[in-house]
Amino acid sequence: MQIGNQHHRAIEALPGSGRVRILDQTFLPHEVVWRDLSSAKEAAEAIKVMRVRGAPLIGATAAYGYAMALAEDPSDGNLASAYDTLHATRPTAVNLRWALDRIRSMAAPLAPDQRAPRAWTEALHIADEDVATNEAIGKHGLEVFQQAFVRRGGTEPLNIMTHCNAGWIATVDWGTALSPIYQAHQQGLPVHIWVSETRPRNQGAALTAWELSQHGIPHTLIVDNGAGHLLQRGLVDLVITGADRVTAAGDVANKIGTYLKALAAQAHGVPFYVAAPVSTIDWTIDDGIRDIPIEQRASREVTHVSGRGADASTAEVLITPDTTPARNDAFDVTPAGLVTGIITENGVFPATKEGLAPNAIKA
Amino acid sequence: MQIGNQHHRAIEALPGSGRVRILDQTFLPHEVVWRDLSSAKEAAEAIKVMRVRGAPLIGATAAYGYAMALAEDPSDGNLASAYDTLHATRPTAVNLRWALDRIRSMAAPLAPDQRAPRAWTEALHIADEDVATNEAIGKHGLEVFQQAFVRRGGTEPLNIMTHCNAGWIATVDWGTALSPIYQAHQQGLPVHIWVSETRPRNQGAALTAWELSQHGIPHTLIVDNGAGHLLQRGLVDLVITGADRVTAAGDVANKIGTYLKALAAQAHGVPFYVAAPVSTIDWTIDDGIRDIPIEQRASREVTHVSGRGADASTAEVLITPDTTPARNDAFDVTPAGLVTGIITENGVFPATKEGLAPNAIKA
Repeated sequence: MQIGNQHHRAIEALPGSGRVRILDQTFLPHEVVWRDLSSAKEAAEAIKVMRVRGAPLIGATAAYGYAMALAEDPSDGNLASAYDTLHATRPTAVNLRWALDRIRSMAAPLAPDQRAPRAWTEALHIADEDVATNEAIGKHGLEVFQQAFVRRGGTEPLNIMTHCNAGWIATVDWGTALSPIYQAHQQGLPVHIWVSETRPRNQGAALTAWELSQHGIPHTLIVDNGAGHLLQRGLVDLVITGADRVTAAGDVANKIGTYLKALAAQAHGVPFYVAAPVSTIDWTIDDGIRDIPIEQRASREVTHVSGRGADASTAEVLITPDTTPARNDAFDVTPAGLVTGIITENGVFPATKEGLAPNAIKA
Repeated sequence: MQIGNQHHRAIEALPGSGRVRILDQTFLPHEVVWRDLSSAKEAAEAIKVMRVRGAPLIGATAAYGYAMALAEDPSDGNLASAYDTLHATRPTAVNLRWALDRIRSMAAPLAPDQRAPRAWTEALHIADEDVATNEAIGKHGLEVFQQAFVRRGGTEPLNIMTHCNAGWIATVDWGTALSPIYQAHQQGLPVHIWVSETRPRNQGAALTAWELSQHGIPHTLIVDNGAGHLLQRGLVDLVITGADRVTAAGDVANKIGTYLKALAAQAHGVPFYVAAPVSTIDWTIDDGIRDIPIEQRASREVTHVSGRGADASTAEVLITPDTTPARNDAFDVTPAGLVTGIITENGVFPATKEGLAPNAIKA
């Protein structure tokens, strides 16, 4: 990913130190702040308060945090309790569990003194694999864009709508939904991105807009409410989002508001794609509405909005009366029937049990 | 309407002064500020910057403003130019034109020195009629609620979702979409209101939540993105909104985001009602998507959010990078096919050409 004109990753291991450095996303878009994490506790806190966010980046951060936990105490007891602590930080993200499982199943058979160094190496692998995975997602997604571009005449920029932030900073690098957008831009396929604000935390307005501007990609912010109108008026050629969890049958849990965009895309015959690594697919469940727990977050995220105040420092404003109660579901589930395809590192697949079956994925 | 425990109207003529007093809604929900308007220019400014908003209240304010204009200069020239100035303040609202037309057609045949007093009397009538109209809308809407309450078992509170603010303060009194809610509450029909935030100007969070709390009606704020999820989970029994314009065939222009809620309501078989006075119906057009101009407002409304800051004064925060471009369509059009019924002062009618035809309305 590019910040200014420099290349970075959203999480970077500091060689030999047992520490990692993260881009603290709670300061974006107004300040670029790097923060070192040196304990499992700090890693858990960073996930919990969303200094890092996005399913793949949460997975990588949890992997490093788990390795740090085993450096602190490599006992069987801590192997279990650190897993639980890190897993509880964001219950919806399946990558989190996937990364923790991977470290645990590797570390559990080892003698305790072997665990920490091997876990650290495994965390490094998870991060490197994420970069390669997202680059491959981008390659497959770019083919989808190229076809859409040709289909709509092959001259004017392709209008792509996205929701939340599934970019560089939701992953270790490249992003998921934004990876094909970066690759399109690099290859000269003209694109224009409709960035939806993504209340309550405004990841679209604060993060996606920032990422795209760092890369010089044309984009326009809209409020989440505007998506239906733009789709109705033919101003959107394709919708693409990331996912926090995809079921074996293709239901997609993603940031709250994704479902409304999928409904509107279907109403106007606009393709709705989900870009996600295979690790996002939860093969143990089919019915996302029944079986994916939806994280409820604090009502303060709804009643207060933070940004840059008049004196250029970070400020928060209350937008409701003092006592207004608010409900804050962090995710919603888009039924598979509304999803045109799932773009993975292994190709683009139909959002069906047959389309996503392990054989197809591993082909 | 009730503020504290006192009864008010959102616009009140000050007897004998030729002035009106408005509740300046730009200070809500944190401060109750009354403001006197004493010229056509001040009335136009109040509409333009949304000190008053909501189609019926805009109509009443424009009527008073037009009367003030004729007090300043009752010539034929000003009869035309004041009309144009006031009409240009908010082009989507059909009530605005309706109120201006009514004053103009009454005043035009009169000698200039007769115009101002007669226009003032007509504006008073328009305001009083609005109160009666909205009370009647509430009565018909309450019947819809009572049927829905019985249909869903007749015990638990009826969960009603609304968008934007179509309440007391969008009208002279009572509101449109909220009028049946107030009447239900008065009559002991238990209701719980899902208030959607309504970005970019947060009328739900700031105004509807405030109104409902002044009246003691149970409510919960959600972000606009949350509507699909709640409907999918069966947590909404009925959706009701106001309208800025309804076509003769039942298409509804209303605050941006209404269309997404209507799509989601249809996807889950939940009734979607629109409450609006007959004056909101534009008999000259059928196709709302083709023929209703959509007001584009400043991008600053999207990139900045105002509320109460840490020191209790009004503050504004920037939620995007400095240079993010934003598009700000103020309204969208919900096609008639998604609308269960239009609740008017004359009854509840299907959103079709036959259902809305003047004969049915006047019956």
